Amino acid sequence: MKTTLRVPGFLRRYLPVLEWGAQYNKDTFTNDTVAAVIVTIMLIPQSLAYALLAGLPAQMGLYASILPLIAYAIFGTSRVLAVGPVAVVSLMTAAAVGNLNLAGPAEYAAAAIVLAFLSGLFLFVVGLFRLGFLANFLSHPVIAGFITASGMIIATSQLKHILGIRANGHNLYELVVSLWEHLAETNWVTLVVGVAATAFLFWVRKGLKPVLLRAGVKPRMADILTKAGPVAAVVITTLVSALFRLDQQGVAIVGSVPSGVPPLTIPSFDLDLWSSLAGSAVLISIIGFVESISVAQTLAAKRRQRINPDQELVALGAANVAAAVSGGYPVTGGFARSVVNFDAGAETPAAGAFTAVGILLAAMFLTPLLYFLPKATLAATIIVAVLSLVDFSILKRTWAYSKPDFAAVAATILITLGFGVEAGVSAGVLLSILLYLYKTSRPHIAEVGRVPGTEHFRNVLRHQVETDPCILSIRVDESLYFANARFLEDYIYDRVVGNKGLKHVILMCPAVNEIDMSALESLEAINERLKSLGVKLHLSEVKGPVMDRLKRAHFLDELSGKVFLSQHQAIKAIQNECDAESETQTLAV
Amino acid sequence: MKTTLRVPGFLRRYLPVLEWGAQYNKDTFTNDTVAAVIVTIMLIPQSLAYALLAGLPAQMGLYASILPLIAYAIFGTSRVLAVGPVAVVSLMTAAAVGNLNLAGPAEYAAAAIVLAFLSGLFLFVVGLFRLGFLANFLSHPVIAGFITASGMIIATSQLKHILGIRANGHNLYELVVSLWEHLAETNWVTLVVGVAATAFLFWVRKGLKPVLLRAGVKPRMADILTKAGPVAAVVITTLVSALFRLDQQGVAIVGSVPSGVPPLTIPSFDLDLWSSLAGSAVLISIIGFVESISVAQTLAAKRRQRINPDQELVALGAANVAAAVSGGYPVTGGFARSVVNFDAGAETPAAGAFTAVGILLAAMFLTPLLYFLPKATLAATIIVAVLSLVDFSILKRTWAYSKPDFAAVAATILITLGFGVEAGVSAGVLLSILLYLYKTSRPHIAEVGRVPGTEHFRNVLRHQVETDPCILSIRVDESLYFANARFLEDYIYDRVVGNKGLKHVILMCPAVNEIDMSALESLEAINERLKSLGVKLHLSEVKGPVMDRLKRAHFLDELSGKVFLSQHQAIKAIQNECDAESETQTLAV
Repeated sequence: MKTTLRVPGFLRRYLPVLEWGAQYNKDTFTNDTVAAVIVTIMLIPQSLAYALLAGLPAQMGLYASILPLIAYAIFGTSRVLAVGPVAVVSLMTAAAVGNLNLAGPAEYAAAAIVLAFLSGLFLFVVGLFRLGFLANFLSHPVIAGFITASGMIIATSQLKHILGIRANGHNLYELVVSLWEHLAETNWVTLVVGVAATAFLFWVRKGLKPVLLRAGVKPRMADILTKAGPVAAVVITTLVSALFRLDQQGVAIVGSVPSGVPPLTIPSFDLDLWSSLAGSAVLISIIGFVESISVAQTLAAKRRQRINPDQELVALGAANVAAAVSGGYPVTGGFARSVVNFDAGAETPAAGAFTAVGILLAAMFLTPLLYFLPKATLAATIIVAVLSLVDFSILKRTWAYSKPDFAAVAATILITLGFGVEAGVSAGVLLSILLYLYKTSRPHIAEVGRVPGTEHFRNVLRHQVETDPCILSIRVDESLYFANARFLEDYIYDRVVGNKGLKHVILMCPAVNEIDMSALESLEAINERLKSLGVKLHLSEVKGPVMDRLKRAHFLDELSGKVFLSQHQAIKAIQNECDAESETQTLAV
Repeated sequence: MKTTLRVPGFLRRYLPVLEWGAQYNKDTFTNDTVAAVIVTIMLIPQSLAYALLAGLPAQMGLYASILPLIAYAIFGTSRVLAVGPVAVVSLMTAAAVGNLNLAGPAEYAAAAIVLAFLSGLFLFVVGLFRLGFLANFLSHPVIAGFITASGMIIATSQLKHILGIRANGHNLYELVVSLWEHLAETNWVTLVVGVAATAFLFWVRKGLKPVLLRAGVKPRMADILTKAGPVAAVVITTLVSALFRLDQQGVAIVGSVPSGVPPLTIPSFDLDLWSSLAGSAVLISIIGFVESISVAQTLAAKRRQRINPDQELVALGAANVAAAVSGGYPVTGGFARSVVNFDAGAETPAAGAFTAVGILLAAMFLTPLLYFLPKATLAATIIVAVLSLVDFSILKRTWAYSKPDFAAVAATILITLGFGVEAGVSAGVLLSILLYLYKTSRPHIAEVGRVPGTEHFRNVLRHQVETDPCILSIRVDESLYFANARFLEDYIYDRVVGNKGLKHVILMCPAVNEIDMSALESLEAINERLKSLGVKLHLSEVKGPVMDRLKRAHFLDELSGKVFLSQHQAIKAIQNECDAESETQTLAV
């Protein structure tokens, strides 16, 4: 007898594995395995390279690509997201840990583990409390600017490996100065290896696909093969390096990488370390989450699947905690590898788990083979990968579309380049919020009149419209709240004072989605002052929820004028009143 | 021959004195002088009391009421604003300078002078660059909460003078604990003087006016006489104190106050001191400006005059710099004294200058008479003055009107009481901005349908309306920007996925005042994904400026559907399309 396992709803929410796992079959298994093999091949050099970028021992890159993938497979809602070390997060890890002035590599690695742990905790808590919307305050232009600037910093930081010199710095200026100072120490053999690897990888990226297509390879397969370029570069340069003993020529090689399963690591509970890494952990988490969720949503949409952002936070949190307890460092969903996973036909998160097995095997048996791998090759894979992220077109597009967005991008790029990644992204977020607040604090206010022969009311400056000297109709194109309440007051007083014939002001509110307490008090003040000037205040086209509140606050009882459903009705009614008044005056004369 | 002096425009903007000064005549002089005499009498005890509150020597209160008034008379745009030391700014000065752990009274006074100087510079610069709108980010509820909590702290801080004990603290908790610890040291003679003075002042405030009115005094005069209560209290208690030598009974008296003109003081240019006071100076400036501009605008409106907020910043900046160079401390336009000035008939800022002369005479000749003045009397005048500021009704009103406003007020009051004035006002501003951003990040989105027989479209949840299974009409009640772009994406995907018969989505945009770059990219993504699902995206009722931008960004070229002037036109056109499609399907069957 077959029994169906009934899974409680909350378990299904927090453990998506229960849902797709129940429908797992042989076909899915085959597809997932194929995808996993391809992603594993791609991930081995990447993991090593990004660990190098983060300033960590090579094996930490591998460790960060094992347990975190299993954790994501259990908790994640994306079917194809490939989790692991990524370029920007590795750079941010280097910056965060580098700022601490630690004693040696062991402390450095320990700090990276704490960073992963804090980042995991933060993501987990944010996900549990469904605060994922916070990531929305990173605007698209700020993200684009940040990624471009980070790509430039990353590429520049890898030049030292290509040149075979020492150099360091967390921003472009420091890096360039440091490179310049050490330029004379360039190791020419390293430079040849580095330039050859870089050129080869660029060619694979741009030139290999047409060749393969002409040779009859199917487009999808050709795409996947071009992603294997880094593996080829690793194999070739390692062989060359070993055969010619390039290490004796001064070429930096990876050297001995410990073999075996990831160690069980317990993050240090040093509160000083925690507090000095907390800010960086938050930034890394947010940036990592935004990168991950963007690629997950893009790929899900292609297969008409849904991503649950809050559960994604929980899953990435679990992945980072998993990284912290298994000798890894901060991870997130990577763009390039997820696309490869998707293209290679992965169907469920099990593909990620199988990839983890592949990387585990590499960590156990492959590391001795990497002894002679030149660091210049890894640097070349990083440079080629990140230069594709550098895209200044966002500057042009935002300039054409919206100056505040342009300002936010430009500031993000400049501050990231000049002061490092953390300063850059913080400044970008802050500036975009300030610019938004500034815009809403000086709302667009239009004086409107009737388009002749219609019931439409339009801006007097943009259209030929009819107005009445007895009535001033004003449309405010913004919610009224504390930041713009006084602006509206000033605007109305400016327009009313000295305007002798004026008897009525109509505030047209179709775009007023909210009137907060400060704005309500401003409206009360406007009403009072206009009353003392013998001018009535009317409202028109007030939205339902706003109206409910105004009624509750008894504002409508005090209002000198009336509230009209439409501007048209308002003008009709008030013009009659004006006519009656002027008749009375004429009679009085 | 009479020549008219021609004043260049920019001079008239920055020196309002040139305008009203040109029309000055004997009548104005008489009115201003009468007002000045009344305000001077009121200001003498106040200046001494607020200096005491700020923890400064009594004469600094007088000095702060001389040159700053002249400066405001030259630069200010309000005809009746009375500038000088006020309660809240004095409390903030005490908190700011008290935080520094200075050596002695001389350093304390020097720091207060620096604070006035920095505050003056800040106000001046903000005014020159016309950044006065920044003050708008202090919402009315936050101000109300802050004033109420400050009033409570000020009143509590003065209890030590009434009890004749030592006690200190910058928040309510510290103050209460400190008072409790020293309660046993209460000086009973001081307590009798303090309670008697407080009771007398309360009676003057509440009970004197009816008595005067019954005695035939005119209402306006009665109002002004009640403001002279503090002077009477000062005179009576000083006489009692001198006659009975209360100082020998342990009653704290003001003691010898130096006589003479204000000293010329040069603010210390100690950069450490500057940087530790800069934050406080900014807060004091903003709070002071808000208090001042509110009363100036209220009084100007009564006489149909206009206030220029940016010039007010310049004027208050000049007043504070004047305070700094003449031995004073931070000043601003006070509420009570400005109302008295107004009621007493002041017509031009010259009244302020005449008041300055009055205080100067007091500083030169009156101070020996203040020798026996009990500090308890000054404390009583402060307590009675600030308790009128304490008003918890704002909690009730915001609770009824808007929960976010309530949260901002409650947080401001609690944090001010618990952690002091600077923390309180900062938290209030930050929280109100965050709540506003939160609200706009989750905008109200309504599915709308046609009210039968009309061209009106309303929320399907609020009204009986007609909809079409082929069309989803959505109205977003907020500008689209980075913080809510993804929210809209999620909302639309949630509504569209699994909705089989759906062929068209119409986004109704009458309340969309802005679409920033992030939102544009979200719209592009929505358009793309809907297209891949075979659903068209249409827009209706897009505002002119928003439309201009969308055109510039070529979004309209990519849009799968159309843009309609009105929702009514959209529904008519699309329903035809739906009908045509279903006919085709029927024919195909």
